[in-house]
Amino acid sequence: MARRRQLVVDDLAEPVPETGDALVALRACGICGSDLHTLRHAAGLAEVAAAMDLDASFDPAHDFHLGHEWVAEVLDLGPGTPPLGEGGAPLAPGDLVVSVPYLVRGTALVPLGFSNDFPAGYAERFLLTAAVCVPVPNGLDPRRAALTEPLAVGLHAVERSGIVPGEAAVVVGCGPIGLALIAWLAARGIEPIVAADHSANRRALARQLGAHEVVDPREEPVVDAWRRVASSSGRGLAPLVIFEAVGVPGMIDDAVFAAPSRSRIVVAGVCMEPDTIRPLLAVVKELDLRFVYAYESHEFSGTLRAIAEGELDVTPLVTGRVGFDGVAEAFVDLGRADHHVKVLVEPDGPPTIEQLSL
Amino acid sequence: MARRRQLVVDDLAEPVPETGDALVALRACGICGSDLHTLRHAAGLAEVAAAMDLDASFDPAHDFHLGHEWVAEVLDLGPGTPPLGEGGAPLAPGDLVVSVPYLVRGTALVPLGFSNDFPAGYAERFLLTAAVCVPVPNGLDPRRAALTEPLAVGLHAVERSGIVPGEAAVVVGCGPIGLALIAWLAARGIEPIVAADHSANRRALARQLGAHEVVDPREEPVVDAWRRVASSSGRGLAPLVIFEAVGVPGMIDDAVFAAPSRSRIVVAGVCMEPDTIRPLLAVVKELDLRFVYAYESHEFSGTLRAIAEGELDVTPLVTGRVGFDGVAEAFVDLGRADHHVKVLVEPDGPPTIEQLSL
Repeated sequence: MARRRQLVVDDLAEPVPETGDALVALRACGICGSDLHTLRHAAGLAEVAAAMDLDASFDPAHDFHLGHEWVAEVLDLGPGTPPLGEGGAPLAPGDLVVSVPYLVRGTALVPLGFSNDFPAGYAERFLLTAAVCVPVPNGLDPRRAALTEPLAVGLHAVERSGIVPGEAAVVVGCGPIGLALIAWLAARGIEPIVAADHSANRRALARQLGAHEVVDPREEPVVDAWRRVASSSGRGLAPLVIFEAVGVPGMIDDAVFAAPSRSRIVVAGVCMEPDTIRPLLAVVKELDLRFVYAYESHEFSGTLRAIAEGELDVTPLVTGRVGFDGVAEAFVDLGRADHHVKVLVEPDGPPTIEQLSL
Repeated sequence: MARRRQLVVDDLAEPVPETGDALVALRACGICGSDLHTLRHAAGLAEVAAAMDLDASFDPAHDFHLGHEWVAEVLDLGPGTPPLGEGGAPLAPGDLVVSVPYLVRGTALVPLGFSNDFPAGYAERFLLTAAVCVPVPNGLDPRRAALTEPLAVGLHAVERSGIVPGEAAVVVGCGPIGLALIAWLAARGIEPIVAADHSANRRALARQLGAHEVVDPREEPVVDAWRRVASSSGRGLAPLVIFEAVGVPGMIDDAVFAAPSRSRIVVAGVCMEPDTIRPLLAVVKELDLRFVYAYESHEFSGTLRAIAEGELDVTPLVTGRVGFDGVAEAFVDLGRADHHVKVLVEPDGPPTIEQLSL
């Protein structure tokens, strides 16, 4: 697998909806860190799928289609498809929808955005399973709706953490997932939320989304910052939940080393390589490591509702848009720059990233 | 720290009880895997203590005292010490007691069995904090009472696992901790309990204590054995809790690799070295890794009660006894042999391990 993978834009056959499908036209699709990971580490993902005994339908040696954070317009329903979306909501051509990224085929679920066969959110037109489409409420900016998927990841991690008011949160890494975590933690009244990132831009966004303190971890370890904030508040040290949202080797052990006894460490960052930890430290501190992935469908639809009702401040998250021809360059930019959070792929977008504010 | 540590038997000054102390005479003290670990890895333990910001009272460069699984007879109480043990139970000279291995000194807790200054369970006489002594019920064989500490470790791990009837348990490693886990899981009605060990002796003990299936992991991976047992029972695959009770590098990743999605892995084995895991596997399976250590004081006294009331079958656990002069050789034997589970150090014990059955 020495060949370097690259993004290509190509013309595909028009997809034809089967019974149960909706044919949709893309309005916008967020570029996700997983897309960058997948391009770089696709062979590793296939190994994981094999280790998990999953359907080996994803072969990274062949072309595959990316994009799993879409908002799209229903163009048509397959023959005999009931005009009903998630939870029995009415569904008709012209509706804007979001959905979990799976397409039902027989008894199998095709992971859209990680499939050799089915185009997904980086295509003008693609197929969704009608019954999992969630209509976007009238009046909600489609670009906000496009944040449903990454924000649902944040909600799921917060749910799995079991954090409750009275406990404190440390968020390590303020990329899209770290920022989504901060938005949900703030919406739940968690205090303090202390966040760390090397980038001043991202630290500023973290504050805007609700972090009570932000630090450059090269200047102050984030758990030290939490101790400082907590003791100056005079409330003492609440139980701590550390959210790891970086996903490179060494981050989990850093958290294990820094965590107070009986902390929970929620691993939301996806480290693609083997990683080293010191189990003895985790044992004597009785740490919980909770690894989290994706979300439940009720968390997905609940996220769209929370965005529509303004429960979450998502304004700072969408920072740019780009057309299909600019995606390859956008991947390079996103891999090295810190001035973007979420860049949306839009069919009428420009060939280089255009700055955008909601 | 190149010097090889060795066990020595020496004459010490008679301990003098202060206010709050009980002076006790050893009846029996179990040899624990931690004792073997501590002798071999004491420098590592000191590093852990430093990383945890613990009182640096334990200096492995100097002599230290081992033994933390005792049953002992109260000889005297320090001047002005209220004659009350744990929970206000009456306490008087002549009583047999067990206790959590900590000695109160000022506002500090001295970890007995890991202290440079205070003799503990491998001494004829030593000091305990009277208020944490738990009297052994009349009629309970002191050798059974000496199992309180290791069985409390098992109870704590089972409590922290959150396992409930209807869930299945896999126990990896059938040393004293693995066997303690099996005894508690059986007492709680967990089914099936599937256990793995390289040793046929230990597998036989695991069955005797309540495991429904035992395997040599070189012949059948233990999670495969669970699948086999569960499907032949016709009840389908219940949520699984994997208890890791070996504590050598690679065991945690083996469990991560073998675990079904959404499993809990309880890490009760103490791996003293850095260890490698594949976080991506843990993420996509949404695993929980719960690291466990020691017990709460109510779990300790609850364990003694459960032993006294026969709720736990502890008969197979005590397999030998030895006098002080035989401890060094017993350490060597226990490090390489599989025919012993728990060997008790007894003041009148023989110079080589004597086989014993309860």
